Amino acid sequence: MTAGIYSARQKLDSLIITKEFGGQMTHKAVDIENYPGFDKISGFELIAKFEEQMKSKGVKVLYDEVKELKKEGEIFSVLTEEGKILESKTVIIATGAEPRRLEVPGENEYIGKGVSYCTTCDGPLYNGKDVAVIGGGDTGFEAAIFLNNYANKIYILEYGDAVRAGKDNQEKASLIEKIQIITSAELKEIKGDGFVNQIVFKDRKTEEEKILDVQGVFVQAGYQPATSFLKDLVELNERKEIVVDFETFETKTPGLFAVGDVNNGRVKQVIVACGEGATAVIYAYKHLNK
Amino acid sequence: MTAGIYSARQKLDSLIITKEFGGQMTHKAVDIENYPGFDKISGFELIAKFEEQMKSKGVKVLYDEVKELKKEGEIFSVLTEEGKILESKTVIIATGAEPRRLEVPGENEYIGKGVSYCTTCDGPLYNGKDVAVIGGGDTGFEAAIFLNNYANKIYILEYGDAVRAGKDNQEKASLIEKIQIITSAELKEIKGDGFVNQIVFKDRKTEEEKILDVQGVFVQAGYQPATSFLKDLVELNERKEIVVDFETFETKTPGLFAVGDVNNGRVKQVIVACGEGATAVIYAYKHLNK
Repeated sequence: MTAGIYSARQKLDSLIITKEFGGQMTHKAVDIENYPGFDKISGFELIAKFEEQMKSKGVKVLYDEVKELKKEGEIFSVLTEEGKILESKTVIIATGAEPRRLEVPGENEYIGKGVSYCTTCDGPLYNGKDVAVIGGGDTGFEAAIFLNNYANKIYILEYGDAVRAGKDNQEKASLIEKIQIITSAELKEIKGDGFVNQIVFKDRKTEEEKILDVQGVFVQAGYQPATSFLKDLVELNERKEIVVDFETFETKTPGLFAVGDVNNGRVKQVIVACGEGATAVIYAYKHLNK
Repeated sequence: MTAGIYSARQKLDSLIITKEFGGQMTHKAVDIENYPGFDKISGFELIAKFEEQMKSKGVKVLYDEVKELKKEGEIFSVLTEEGKILESKTVIIATGAEPRRLEVPGENEYIGKGVSYCTTCDGPLYNGKDVAVIGGGDTGFEAAIFLNNYANKIYILEYGDAVRAGKDNQEKASLIEKIQIITSAELKEIKGDGFVNQIVFKDRKTEEEKILDVQGVFVQAGYQPATSFLKDLVELNERKEIVVDFETFETKTPGLFAVGDVNNGRVKQVIVACGEGATAVIYAYKHLNK
């Protein structure tokens, strides 16, 4: 959306192709408190403000989905689900990434009501509460260490028989008494009563079912960037994120840019994605003027 | 300010040292229309919102100025104008950039007597007067468009053979009859009699010297990054901007970051600077956890 606003300001002949606006943000049930300019605002409201601004600047939108992107010579062509073919000289990919779901009962029901996929965003809401982090890799440990600022008790549940986090993160976590690591733990269900109040997991060694009373569940099972339509126009890293030049956000294909959660930047934050959208337009403009 | 908000959210023991908030933004002549979330807002108002948010998150502020920054071992020490010495493990520089002087005869003499670097502050003083804007980039055009509210006649002088402003600003200016654009113009002197009454410039194509009767000169010749207190802790480019790694915004000194207009990023925009501030905090946090 920021790229749209900037494209309109640069008087570029541009079009946003999307099924809907806002992605993860629209479905975020808790307020955003770290987007500068709004002390506290729901993702839904913030996106509505972005949309209003886009409209006022005359940004054109096609409500459709991209099925395939190709480049022939200097021209990109986009094939949509509804069968439209659109051509352009530059393309900015801003398709985001979906947090990987656990696919357990209760998970969808309690999103924003105790289930969170973003510790930086939602951690501060769990002041004095007991929480579980699902995933014993580095991001799981980092989430737990961060939650130490707020939570009363932090469980880390790891499916495997040993955690996968690096030694440094393991050492740091071991110094925090509040953190308890549970390995061989297979999450079975998230329960609640309007809000999360319990998780059920199976101890894979004893086959016993166990219960933990928690008010928060932080899922750290990785992200799934939306890149399937791109084929070999871009290089993907081991996380399936699009590799970009961090100065320009250009991919390996000249004129093709990728911004926000879909690229290999490590800071997945709204304000960062917005800055990238603006920057990519300036470099797309330069590409067009070449 | 974004770095402040993110530091508070990460529960880092942090302090903002500044003389005042907002820098260029507070003095910006025209409304900001490209900060996502606000269709149209004055720089002053936007900064007030950032400040309110900082206060609500408990960001600590010291109203002072940094005179010197040193690093000994792993510890930075900051010496302030008021003689305070502060120590920290990481430092984020977000000092922005100061307006660049033209260095022509008469400039220093007539500062505040017809020569201005701040259209918002001084524009209203030129009601019904003839003025010149020096610089045909976006800030020059934005200044001219703002001066249309007050001045009788507005000249934009651009040194190059073509103006450098974006298409939207060029279009807006072309609709204002009062604005006259003069390219290939090299300013030679600012003259006056107590107050400015004339400027002399050379037409770089004909080599002719020309005179314009104006009572105001608004200098829009770019910015000088505020880096003098940094000595050899950072590498500067030919624009005297701090060279950073664009993924992390770290400088050549580990633990020292630079964000916003003061670094060598080419896109000098509020939203980009904000994104950088957030990113730098996340990497400062990683540095602290090493």
